Amino acid sequence: MEPEPVLSRDARTGETRAQIGIEADAAAVDAAVRAADATRDALADRPRRAALLRAAAQAVEARADALIAAADAETALGVPRLTGELARVAYQFRFFAGIAEDGAYLGVVVDPPDPAAVPPRPELRRWKVPIGTVAVFAASNFPFAFSVPGGDTASALAAGCPVVVKAHPDHPETSELAAAAIRDAAVEVGLPADVLTLVHGRQAGVDLVRHPLISAVGFTGSIPGGRALFDLAAARPSPIPFYGELGSLNPVLITERTAAARGAETAAGLVASYTLGQGQFCTKPGLVLVPEGQAGDQLVATATEAAAAAVPGALLDARMREHFLAGFAARAALPGVRTLVEAAAAPTGDVPQAVRAGLLEVDADTLDGGELLEECFGPVTVLVRYRDMAGVEAVLARLGGNLTATLHAEPDEPDAARWISRLARFAGRVIFGGWPTGVAVAPAMTHGGPYPATTTPTTSVGGTAIDRWLRPVTFQTVPPELLQPELSHPS
Amino acid sequence: MEPEPVLSRDARTGETRAQIGIEADAAAVDAAVRAADATRDALADRPRRAALLRAAAQAVEARADALIAAADAETALGVPRLTGELARVAYQFRFFAGIAEDGAYLGVVVDPPDPAAVPPRPELRRWKVPIGTVAVFAASNFPFAFSVPGGDTASALAAGCPVVVKAHPDHPETSELAAAAIRDAAVEVGLPADVLTLVHGRQAGVDLVRHPLISAVGFTGSIPGGRALFDLAAARPSPIPFYGELGSLNPVLITERTAAARGAETAAGLVASYTLGQGQFCTKPGLVLVPEGQAGDQLVATATEAAAAAVPGALLDARMREHFLAGFAARAALPGVRTLVEAAAAPTGDVPQAVRAGLLEVDADTLDGGELLEECFGPVTVLVRYRDMAGVEAVLARLGGNLTATLHAEPDEPDAARWISRLARFAGRVIFGGWPTGVAVAPAMTHGGPYPATTTPTTSVGGTAIDRWLRPVTFQTVPPELLQPELSHPS
Repeated sequence: MEPEPVLSRDARTGETRAQIGIEADAAAVDAAVRAADATRDALADRPRRAALLRAAAQAVEARADALIAAADAETALGVPRLTGELARVAYQFRFFAGIAEDGAYLGVVVDPPDPAAVPPRPELRRWKVPIGTVAVFAASNFPFAFSVPGGDTASALAAGCPVVVKAHPDHPETSELAAAAIRDAAVEVGLPADVLTLVHGRQAGVDLVRHPLISAVGFTGSIPGGRALFDLAAARPSPIPFYGELGSLNPVLITERTAAARGAETAAGLVASYTLGQGQFCTKPGLVLVPEGQAGDQLVATATEAAAAAVPGALLDARMREHFLAGFAARAALPGVRTLVEAAAAPTGDVPQAVRAGLLEVDADTLDGGELLEECFGPVTVLVRYRDMAGVEAVLARLGGNLTATLHAEPDEPDAARWISRLARFAGRVIFGGWPTGVAVAPAMTHGGPYPATTTPTTSVGGTAIDRWLRPVTFQTVPPELLQPELSHPS
Repeated sequence: MEPEPVLSRDARTGETRAQIGIEADAAAVDAAVRAADATRDALADRPRRAALLRAAAQAVEARADALIAAADAETALGVPRLTGELARVAYQFRFFAGIAEDGAYLGVVVDPPDPAAVPPRPELRRWKVPIGTVAVFAASNFPFAFSVPGGDTASALAAGCPVVVKAHPDHPETSELAAAAIRDAAVEVGLPADVLTLVHGRQAGVDLVRHPLISAVGFTGSIPGGRALFDLAAARPSPIPFYGELGSLNPVLITERTAAARGAETAAGLVASYTLGQGQFCTKPGLVLVPEGQAGDQLVATATEAAAAAVPGALLDARMREHFLAGFAARAALPGVRTLVEAAAAPTGDVPQAVRAGLLEVDADTLDGGELLEECFGPVTVLVRYRDMAGVEAVLARLGGNLTATLHAEPDEPDAARWISRLARFAGRVIFGGWPTGVAVAPAMTHGGPYPATTTPTTSVGGTAIDRWLRPVTFQTVPPELLQPELSHPS
């Protein structure tokens, strides 16, 4: 069989830019996995891993122009956004260098012997070790931050796990450039380049998840794609953890008092958030609970105006554009749904693939499930008008797991604490008075939630993202001189 | 369809003692889950959970005579062992009460805002919340410590998760008595009794794993049974974490120098460990690497003598007895396998179901996989004679994941550190100079390992067992007065 070419396409025009390589067949995937896996012993050196992550930060910064130019052509996300995203990636590499160096993530616990315990307790020393070689599936919508040089890669390398990345077909050239930067950084600090290897192709992803030397998977993408790979991981002779971020509606609840007190500002913030990056964020607010009545009406009017004025732009690829336009049309056609702004193709000379944002409205009473409770990737959100808090509860009760949930309320509202707690029941991050887009790289971040937000309720962003790539090991009555210094002389 | 009766049987005689109840049909499982799930809000009170665990410890101690009598009849494990196991359970409840009270497991992290970060960082407060209602599958071999009042139950309640236990058919009366003790303890501290509910029956277990209100599963049992339930958990519309402990060979490596220096003592320790509780421990050493040559021969001779002298006893049930005797015969018949002591039925007037321990020997060169590398539940182990460390490595390379691996070496042997590190590659606990049976309840314990030791490499014993029943939630720019005190005023 002829190998399939890997093509780089211009997201604004849909045209082919260049052939980047060929898709990996089973032998090529096997070679990529074996090469990465052979670097496990070298990566066991924790200070050197920290050095690798710092060198990777420097390497992506040094190659920023080429990386951003390729990513802008391949994704149409624009130079300002991509410049910020690359800075975030460099920050993230240094952040995980600090975590690797600090070593608190190792979770070292030393129990002295206790003959009085039941049963008697021998001396125990526990820490966490790298789980093994990790497969990372890059996302379409973040060519840097959730792709080759993204959080999964940075946290896995910090943990001591070699990484095999399955590139996203939307940005193969960007992926190759980023992989080269990290591989060169490895060599620079005296590690093998193969601490990170890269494969292209849909079947290559399947082969990767099934490969016996792969010990865990990180994935960011759609529910159907992620669930198919999750199922493969679970069906292996030896199942492996699959950390997939699949989809999220990111509901927002605006109370009557906030609609009255700061309706215009809230409407403007909402539209800015759901149209940011053409609505192609996993944290895009996709369902907004707005009160009925005058204050809510005014908020909706302001949002409608702002949405109609939003600048059109291209989506990441032609398939997403089709899905978005079809998804909008299907939702708009549902009984009881009112189109406030119609999403549509909005081609210009420079950007023939551009679309403009849409805005929908529906009454809480008529929202009885179905498509309106599913994520629609792209610049659209659904305003759900509620009569009272029982109406809100009826909607919330129908939601699955979410990455985020947002409350716009006044801090002195009697029910504010109760609603915060209610939103935490189905979301991994609860935001008060802000917007879910923008996920800080920070020790306390959670980017994950009950299914389908993520397949396992952990986080793929922030300090504890490293926990996914570790497993605990306890040493019982092992003479300290036979152990690593972290265990023999814990601080 | 007639409901199936749940029968308590005498393990020593195989006779029916009493009917305990009926197997739960789908409606009964649903009722048990809903009743437990309805206690989530009540269990959110952390100090009260600690009180519940302390009251549960007291309750099982107060009812020790009845619990031990039922368990002894149902399992034949003997009053001394069961007395120790019950003490362990009480210790474990108090241990988790302390963990719940302390709150360090909540993993509270508070990030102050940082406008200079990329992207800018808002104030974030993260902790862990209970994952939801948990299903616990009791094990045959620990009617207390890995059953209704065991580590899964204690850690899940400590986390704030209601528990629905699927009783093991080997000890239904013990299960009912233990459940009543915990339910009464709940009422005593002002919690609903339904923080723990109990169901019997194989199909009930299937229905439990599939129930939409079940958020995670703890399981201890066989590879086929555990894998089938793991597959069900993964195939749910919303998959849930399945923490299963399935099987382990628990290899032991004895070096030439140790065989020479302390062969007799090591042989005695080995036989005591693998025949303890009639070899019905998940940590039973099932494969022992012994050097060829005179020191190894002497060690084998001593072990053979001790094994032949081991006191016969009944296994947990008739099915296990058959599996054990058939499993021993199948292994003994393999080419190159030498029978040192033949396992066999050894009926007495009091214990018609008794068996005696077996001991097998094989050369490392002829050990090419198959049944000898699979766990054989019951009092048997396989001595594998090796010529050199390359022969040892060839055996280790064929092993799957294990709960434990043990090294008997002299601390000053040049390769000791390397072998410790090698054993840690496939095991969750590495023991030096001791034996794997006996799993201390301690902060630093790991009882879990790569598949098939456990389905997910976590621990089901020790302080961090609580982590399985939690998920992280981050609060972003939420006014502290709207949050729980742990987050608003972290210590």
